[in-house]
Amino acid sequence: MLTYTFDEACGTPLYEQLYQNIKRDIALGRLRAGEKLPSKRSLARHLQLGVVTVQNAYAQLAVEGYIEPRERSGYFVAELDESLPPPEPARRPHPAERRREYLLDLKTNRIDAGNFPFSVWSRLMRRTLSERSSLLLDPLPHSGASALREAISGHLRRFRGMSVPPENIIVAAGTDVLYNLIIQLLGHDLTYALEDPGYNKLGLVCRACGAKTAYIPLDSWGMNPRSLEESGARAAHISPAHHYPTGIVMPVSRRRQLLSWAVRCGGYIIEDDYDSEFRFTGRPIETVQSIDTSGRVIYMNTFSKSIAPSIRISYMALPDELMAVFSKKLGFYSCTVPSFEQYTLAQFISGGYFEQHLARMKNHYKALRGQVIAAIDAMPFRRYLTISEQHAGLHFLLRVNSPLSDGDLLACAETLGVRISCLSELTHRPEPRFEHTLIVNYSGVTPEQLERFAGLIRSCEMK
Amino acid sequence: MLTYTFDEACGTPLYEQLYQNIKRDIALGRLRAGEKLPSKRSLARHLQLGVVTVQNAYAQLAVEGYIEPRERSGYFVAELDESLPPPEPARRPHPAERRREYLLDLKTNRIDAGNFPFSVWSRLMRRTLSERSSLLLDPLPHSGASALREAISGHLRRFRGMSVPPENIIVAAGTDVLYNLIIQLLGHDLTYALEDPGYNKLGLVCRACGAKTAYIPLDSWGMNPRSLEESGARAAHISPAHHYPTGIVMPVSRRRQLLSWAVRCGGYIIEDDYDSEFRFTGRPIETVQSIDTSGRVIYMNTFSKSIAPSIRISYMALPDELMAVFSKKLGFYSCTVPSFEQYTLAQFISGGYFEQHLARMKNHYKALRGQVIAAIDAMPFRRYLTISEQHAGLHFLLRVNSPLSDGDLLACAETLGVRISCLSELTHRPEPRFEHTLIVNYSGVTPEQLERFAGLIRSCEMK
Repeated sequence: MLTYTFDEACGTPLYEQLYQNIKRDIALGRLRAGEKLPSKRSLARHLQLGVVTVQNAYAQLAVEGYIEPRERSGYFVAELDESLPPPEPARRPHPAERRREYLLDLKTNRIDAGNFPFSVWSRLMRRTLSERSSLLLDPLPHSGASALREAISGHLRRFRGMSVPPENIIVAAGTDVLYNLIIQLLGHDLTYALEDPGYNKLGLVCRACGAKTAYIPLDSWGMNPRSLEESGARAAHISPAHHYPTGIVMPVSRRRQLLSWAVRCGGYIIEDDYDSEFRFTGRPIETVQSIDTSGRVIYMNTFSKSIAPSIRISYMALPDELMAVFSKKLGFYSCTVPSFEQYTLAQFISGGYFEQHLARMKNHYKALRGQVIAAIDAMPFRRYLTISEQHAGLHFLLRVNSPLSDGDLLACAETLGVRISCLSELTHRPEPRFEHTLIVNYSGVTPEQLERFAGLIRSCEMK
Repeated sequence: MLTYTFDEACGTPLYEQLYQNIKRDIALGRLRAGEKLPSKRSLARHLQLGVVTVQNAYAQLAVEGYIEPRERSGYFVAELDESLPPPEPARRPHPAERRREYLLDLKTNRIDAGNFPFSVWSRLMRRTLSERSSLLLDPLPHSGASALREAISGHLRRFRGMSVPPENIIVAAGTDVLYNLIIQLLGHDLTYALEDPGYNKLGLVCRACGAKTAYIPLDSWGMNPRSLEESGARAAHISPAHHYPTGIVMPVSRRRQLLSWAVRCGGYIIEDDYDSEFRFTGRPIETVQSIDTSGRVIYMNTFSKSIAPSIRISYMALPDELMAVFSKKLGFYSCTVPSFEQYTLAQFISGGYFEQHLARMKNHYKALRGQVIAAIDAMPFRRYLTISEQHAGLHFLLRVNSPLSDGDLLACAETLGVRISCLSELTHRPEPRFEHTLIVNYSGVTPEQLERFAGLIRSCEMK
């Protein structure tokens, strides 16, 4: 008869100890397929357990399929017919990720935590929690909470002069999710035209989704329409308000040319407006979506730059026809943003806090940009540097007149504790005009860091 | 000379009014391409405006490309060479979505808001907000906050007896996002095997992503291995703990057979454990992932059922080898869950609140299930009904001995104010054994609703 010892003090119920013991014996082949198990009553007597304990253990083994009840004859060990390979040696722990601390990080566009409107945001969070408590658990429409879509529609009207009905807005957990939805909406068989150079995460998403891409060179007005035409692409991703990294602001004539292309070939323009909130002179520039009269523009924007990346909310506005296709083809998807964040952000926008925050951040970035440029102006090797900027956005270009290769330039920067990227990293066609050009993403820089960096430069000079 | 009237009281700056007026004249062709604009000074004098006002308007028009400065000769209207079609008639508003109120909704597995642990959750939210404030803005690893991945790893060890290192866990904004990631990880050229009948959202995602699917019939132990073998699929999605909607608990022999299939063909099992927290008798059943020694199982689960759908957090655990591929191929993706929710959930789990909540919900659902079954037992037409259930999960089947078609049965239910779905809706191969079977999703039912429903039935009877 099966004989096991039990530990009554260990906290594991007796039935579970029995279940584990029998299961191990089956796995090790001590109990063979087809073998009859002792009756519940006799095993209980033998092991000095209650019948219910044995019954529970048998029931669990039966439900998992280790043993089988046969009518009027008791329990039998089941056939575990296929042999599986033996377990692998224990996993080795992954090496911990090493993260270098930089004196100045000009590569990642981090947001300085000091600028996040914590007090307002947490007040709105608390209010959402108390006012919306049960609503928070209701399923949301796939395109997002209507309160948030209405707030975004209002913001676009006030801030960008755009007319976008809330029903055409889709809210998602970041730009990556939107890119995935767009590819599924327009199709994998399409070729997607991307700006070269450019911020090409869409290119990575296309590759991951199995869609084709065409890298279209830029001239001084943005994506070249002739190259676009020749590429055979049917969707073009552009950032006309302030191109990353060149900073080009696309003039209206080029915008209209690209729109005409979309109308002619039945294609779409994906207008990424991610950086448009931060223009330091003049009005914000009218979007392509605003001058589109044929429903060929997918407009998208994110709160990652304007509030914080960790908020994970982006949105897109689809033209009517595409919106209908979306609902039909992709309406089964659940919205990817938690209700809680959606209601909080809706209040943040419709309460006027978002536009206040943007105004404050615009001043902050304008001042910060000035300080960064002043720090560059004060550099001993200033005469080898040319700043190229358009009074907009959270980055500018710094051309370096130097015989050093881009790799060497980055290595030099690294030695000085500066993390920075260069234009040539973001191009698909190497060209001399893209070389020796650093991209200064300054949004995460603090005055203290600039101060320390200036000190370092001075000390280098003195040596 | 250009002549416009200005409204100083309207709140729009004068330079913007001038900009709008000139832009409109260009759009309407009143100002033609190549036409010279008046000098800033003369236009300012003419319109009684400051020179700076005109200068700002011209600068904005120039930056948008409506006019061009030519050196030493002033500003000229730009060539807008392509003509775009005229604007469409105004958009018609979308019809408001009509949502019927049901007496009893047995179709959507809603969560009763009264059961959500609001006070603990909001306390943890507040704590997260105060303790983690600046951390909340830091970018997270693509697989999620390590605090959350550690908490999940601990929960899986304690609650499911699973050994999953935090480094192998990927957190995402819902199961849909995980499905998308899995398809991108394993490939679009693969065929995905799906349970038939089954909860086939993965099938919809496959279709949206352009991946092939094979619907594999179930026998009484779950997915049929011979059909799976013949399908040529290389990935099989199963829910062995408690299949939706049949309720089948897959015995260990079948689990091992499917694992052997995966080892033989180099395929993968996607184990969806979404409902496993709610077994009402016995221990939770061991996962396929736990008996896998060859790294062929992708385990996934969600907090949608166990906490609330609107929380939008799901996760998967990848075997070592796939995890390495994931990081290399898809590591560019940002994590889709806001930091705030991640840190709050991490505390909810590691503080023991999650397991407390599960225990409470298990009791709640067990009692609720009993009440629903009692209500069915009290029905006048009880003898035509057979309840089929496995003491597990948030649904059970109700077979109706009736000559009515499934469509008629649903229509009858609808007349009584009951929203319900039937098994035949979830099958791809019509078979008599799937007919006349209703799926009772009872998690959102309240005792009051049951009471009112019983009243309605009694009143029908009396007529």
